[in-house]
Amino acid sequence: MLIVQKFGGTSVGDLDRIENVAARVSKTVKKGNSVVVVVSAMSGETNKLVGYAEHFSKNPASAEMDMLLSSGERVTAALVSIALQEMGHNSTAMTGRKAGILTDNSHTKARIEDINTDTMKCAIKEGKILVIAGFQGVNAKGDVTTLGRGGSDLSAVAIAGALKADLCEIYTDVSGIYTTDPRIESKAKKLDKISYDEMLELASMGAKVLQNRSVEMAKKLNVNLVTRTSFSDEEGTLITREENIMEAPLVSGIALDRNQARISLMGVKDKPGIASDIFNKLAEAEVNIDVIIQNKAHDGTTNIDFTVPVSELLGAKAIVDTFVQKGDIKDDSYNEDICKVSVVGVGMKSHAGVAAKAFSTMADNNININMISTSEIKVSMVIDEKYAELAVRGLHDAYELDK
Amino acid sequence: MLIVQKFGGTSVGDLDRIENVAARVSKTVKKGNSVVVVVSAMSGETNKLVGYAEHFSKNPASAEMDMLLSSGERVTAALVSIALQEMGHNSTAMTGRKAGILTDNSHTKARIEDINTDTMKCAIKEGKILVIAGFQGVNAKGDVTTLGRGGSDLSAVAIAGALKADLCEIYTDVSGIYTTDPRIESKAKKLDKISYDEMLELASMGAKVLQNRSVEMAKKLNVNLVTRTSFSDEEGTLITREENIMEAPLVSGIALDRNQARISLMGVKDKPGIASDIFNKLAEAEVNIDVIIQNKAHDGTTNIDFTVPVSELLGAKAIVDTFVQKGDIKDDSYNEDICKVSVVGVGMKSHAGVAAKAFSTMADNNININMISTSEIKVSMVIDEKYAELAVRGLHDAYELDK
Repeated sequence: MLIVQKFGGTSVGDLDRIENVAARVSKTVKKGNSVVVVVSAMSGETNKLVGYAEHFSKNPASAEMDMLLSSGERVTAALVSIALQEMGHNSTAMTGRKAGILTDNSHTKARIEDINTDTMKCAIKEGKILVIAGFQGVNAKGDVTTLGRGGSDLSAVAIAGALKADLCEIYTDVSGIYTTDPRIESKAKKLDKISYDEMLELASMGAKVLQNRSVEMAKKLNVNLVTRTSFSDEEGTLITREENIMEAPLVSGIALDRNQARISLMGVKDKPGIASDIFNKLAEAEVNIDVIIQNKAHDGTTNIDFTVPVSELLGAKAIVDTFVQKGDIKDDSYNEDICKVSVVGVGMKSHAGVAAKAFSTMADNNININMISTSEIKVSMVIDEKYAELAVRGLHDAYELDK
Repeated sequence: MLIVQKFGGTSVGDLDRIENVAARVSKTVKKGNSVVVVVSAMSGETNKLVGYAEHFSKNPASAEMDMLLSSGERVTAALVSIALQEMGHNSTAMTGRKAGILTDNSHTKARIEDINTDTMKCAIKEGKILVIAGFQGVNAKGDVTTLGRGGSDLSAVAIAGALKADLCEIYTDVSGIYTTDPRIESKAKKLDKISYDEMLELASMGAKVLQNRSVEMAKKLNVNLVTRTSFSDEEGTLITREENIMEAPLVSGIALDRNQARISLMGVKDKPGIASDIFNKLAEAEVNIDVIIQNKAHDGTTNIDFTVPVSELLGAKAIVDTFVQKGDIKDDSYNEDICKVSVVGVGMKSHAGVAAKAFSTMADNNININMISTSEIKVSMVIDEKYAELAVRGLHDAYELDK
């Protein structure tokens, strides 16, 4: 098999851990596999370099930032390759440039446009283990670029896709994807397999193992992704196509997102275009709106409720205020003490009653549901934050996820 | 003027010092000059990275070492450029690759083969300050290489030569070249100007401000080199062509080299080819031989005395022993308690009596001269190490270098 193994910052956090990483790669190679290793900077390095830059400027030039930040991954790649060579392996360290990662020109948040696999394929054919600096590529001018947050995962997935690797293993400090947060529900179980779509719903709602950008790319390139820990031999969770999961459970997991605030607009003028005007202005300000509900009041005006990330609340408030001042909205109120609990599972596509069970579970626990939103594979409920753990445990139990 | 300014590790040792470097560059630019900055890694960084590599291997692969070590200069270059931009300057950071530094394939000790100045010249024409990562280039395969010890100085001199810069300033923590070591002779004076050849003689004999490799390249490319300190505005020392120094003093400086050991071979067999055989074997073992004297003994055999660096004494001894065992040498002895004092000056080319004054100064101070070697611009004397300071001060005084 051709396996891409990606090790994040904590997995290469110090020299002993780098040694462990090399040992793991070595073991995989000795089983007869070809391995391409993708590494992040040692944990803390990137933050240190960002701190250096911020010492000089609040807004450092992004080309300079890329030259600065891309150095961390080069260091790790060189060290892992040295460690592998010392173990007797034939390995070679590569920068993003050498590996053929071509990006657009958006410094510090570049998108991978193409991967020229010639050099990598040639080295693999020569029996070499490749150790590639993640998070970086080069633009058309030949300048180094970086891929933004989660960029090393993205490098790994893109390389796995381009090389048609059998597997792309993402090593972190958590052992896989769980049915829910084990810190809330101790009976949470690790999932063996999960579909891309389910993972996307879980990740966007607070399961921070993988950035959505990487999962989306894995889905697009049909890459079998595994998240697992570098600190033990425990098997991880395979993220794959729905078709590869023989018997998908009705519900795969319960996600909790505490990072939401609710904005209530009362007495929105019954005038065509007002609501769309409000949401357009919010979109222009890059406020991410999640759940929206709307209902008519007795006086003919409309009440609109929606949620935004807590960090975007102030920006949203400023925009809403302009409509209040114009008299288009009678009154507004804000609530940060809410959370969103979601039930996720591809099984619910073909099974009725999943949502009903969620609502009755809330009722059984005397939890009032403030807002509801649903998709093909998800039921989300906005509730008071104080009920967060109670709701998660109740739902985990109701769908028998500990079985 | 087009000025190349090179800042070494201690000059960019922390963020405040990097700020100072940017301020100095800024001042030079505001006087109407075009500036190309070449930087080393922050002091300690390269040693840290070497330590990391040695954690894994006693003999890490040199290509990996280059990928590892080249990261430090990238960081400094990016930071200096960010600091300059914050001051309102139009600057751009460049790796060795971007600056067009092409080297041979000798990883960790590459030689610069060519500099493609297109990108640099274009950026200078656009009014930009260039901030270039020193110590690095790329080989024909496009892999990063490093230039070995003193490599950043070499980058600066090579760039100055390729761009035909008016001046190449090398900033360190010392303020220039002195008539002798000020720690030995407090009356030592800083030289305003010195010729390449004098500098080469002084440097090879212990004045460690500049590596000979850089001075040789400056001489070859006709680069006006200035060594000065980054910690004050004090003027430094100009190293230039002999013709540019109007009134060269008879003697420019007194150098002291404590790092020599003397090997004495007594009763070398009077057989043709023995001496050349000994020195050939020493050369094969890369033992650097400095002063050699030879004289006939009464019994027809020969006595040969020579000096080697202390660090190469053991290697030399092993070779000499084989000749002793064969009976080609009757007896050998070794003395590490010696030093070499040298009087250097281009003026002595055209003036007699310089050597005579050196010998009489030794005599006046009751110092026995063990060995003598002379060149066009240098008189070297090997003496007992305990007289080192006495000899340096005596010579400094005799040639009136404090005047």
